[in-house]
Amino acid sequence: MALFADRLIQQILAKDSRSIVGLDPRIDQMPAFVRGSGTCAAITEFHELVLDAVADLVPAVKPQLAFFEQYGVAGMQAFENTVRAAKQRGLLVIADGKRNDISSTAEAYANAYLGSGGFDAGFDCDALTATPYLGRDSLVPFVEACKKHGKGLFVILKTSNPGSKDFEDQPLEATGRPLYEKIAGVIQELGDGLVGGSGYSSIGAVIGATFPEEGSRLRELMPRALILVPGYGAQGGSAKAAAECFNDDGLGAIVNSSRGITYAFGDPDISRDAFVRSVRENTLRMIADVNAAVKTAIGALP
Amino acid sequence: MALFADRLIQQILAKDSRSIVGLDPRIDQMPAFVRGSGTCAAITEFHELVLDAVADLVPAVKPQLAFFEQYGVAGMQAFENTVRAAKQRGLLVIADGKRNDISSTAEAYANAYLGSGGFDAGFDCDALTATPYLGRDSLVPFVEACKKHGKGLFVILKTSNPGSKDFEDQPLEATGRPLYEKIAGVIQELGDGLVGGSGYSSIGAVIGATFPEEGSRLRELMPRALILVPGYGAQGGSAKAAAECFNDDGLGAIVNSSRGITYAFGDPDISRDAFVRSVRENTLRMIADVNAAVKTAIGALP
Repeated sequence: MALFADRLIQQILAKDSRSIVGLDPRIDQMPAFVRGSGTCAAITEFHELVLDAVADLVPAVKPQLAFFEQYGVAGMQAFENTVRAAKQRGLLVIADGKRNDISSTAEAYANAYLGSGGFDAGFDCDALTATPYLGRDSLVPFVEACKKHGKGLFVILKTSNPGSKDFEDQPLEATGRPLYEKIAGVIQELGDGLVGGSGYSSIGAVIGATFPEEGSRLRELMPRALILVPGYGAQGGSAKAAAECFNDDGLGAIVNSSRGITYAFGDPDISRDAFVRSVRENTLRMIADVNAAVKTAIGALP
Repeated sequence: MALFADRLIQQILAKDSRSIVGLDPRIDQMPAFVRGSGTCAAITEFHELVLDAVADLVPAVKPQLAFFEQYGVAGMQAFENTVRAAKQRGLLVIADGKRNDISSTAEAYANAYLGSGGFDAGFDCDALTATPYLGRDSLVPFVEACKKHGKGLFVILKTSNPGSKDFEDQPLEATGRPLYEKIAGVIQELGDGLVGGSGYSSIGAVIGATFPEEGSRLRELMPRALILVPGYGAQGGSAKAAAECFNDDGLGAIVNSSRGITYAFGDPDISRDAFVRSVRENTLRMIADVNAAVKTAIGALP
């Protein structure tokens, strides 16, 4: 199977889009026309409409597992439906679960999200986000699954919240440099064996759009890592800041927006058609904004 | 509602047991009599038998979410069934999910596992494990849920794997002390408002049984935190090492074993009755082993 990194870069180039859409189900904020049809049905229909609106525009979607899990088993059924609907429309699925554990438990998480699927056999997404705190060996089972099944991993490195300074930014005694830079070195090393024809590795990192200087520095430390950039829009990150996570080839990062795309439709009594138009327009606006910022930063796009 | 810490300490004293049982579904390792009945049914029956065997012996069980998630929606339905079955038998449920995220996403995880339950409204466990990397503010929504619903949180501090040295142990430039000690300070502070009549806080920590010196030092740094100690048995941690995580009152920690309790039955063609006996005997042996080690360490048990 083709490497995840190559599949993602191919979609980015084909669609000329460095933006992805986050799927965060919050039923109480959905349009009235989907509410009242039951938890699983409402979330599934909402996402099918979003996916219809953006399938030809973006390379990937990022369902946020927490928002599905808060609805219990019905939410997880909706997650399975959403993943299937996205793949049917040719979109890559990055499960944002920030999972991690050690040894056989880490393997179980890798099976759950980065396996090859099948009946009762996990969710078969294209990529997963993972936290690094437990150490290099906790990430290895995920890397192995990526190798085996053509999947991808995005390791949490520098998040967009103020509290990211508490532990992520801590200068280490050994180097005087922040902890996240040490982790970046491990990401770069773990990704070495998974660099494809695109020049990028399937082992990437998550860096919030609210910290452009850190993004720029980390971009240099991990030249081949794909960077997932959350925090654009609702969380206060700008396209200009996100552009710092790109390489001079205009590639190497994807910028995510969730609420700004799917919950910015205004009137809760909006029609299905108008909702789809709203999602599509918000997505087109973001794609243009990000592309323009990257172009400004590097001079020209491929 | 009573604080989680008080509910746990009450169960520990009533059952004179500082040991808990981990529930890690691995269908291929289950006895033949449950296999072949379908994923969800097999996991549910296996756990109901385990719970029958240990309900009067231990204060809590620790289902490991990764092993449920690897079976997709069927696994999550089995998780819901397992949580319900444990609570029906009077056991506290500590969901081992190592979840974490920022702001409203962290709230969604708190809703999912530490909410008050109800139809399609999360899994209503008694406590959850969480990773700390994203910073203090990422933990606050979980702490708020604990306050509101009488639930508990165990923050991952020092894990039992060799790779825990990579980031967890890194000495910080500011103090010359390991990162996990800085996090321990935050856990102690976050738990201040949740100390109950038992003298313990509902905000605790996870410290692997394979690192007794670190456990002893962290015990002193967080005198009121409940410590969840994994790694006993299959992962190489001893009762003597785990005993370092207890206070002089013989309380303040719970030691977990998973495989050593539930998958140590030998013959896959074992009968239901013999399986239940095996689980019960393994549990009684562990309880005695841990109690003896704590007694040796502190002189006497309460």
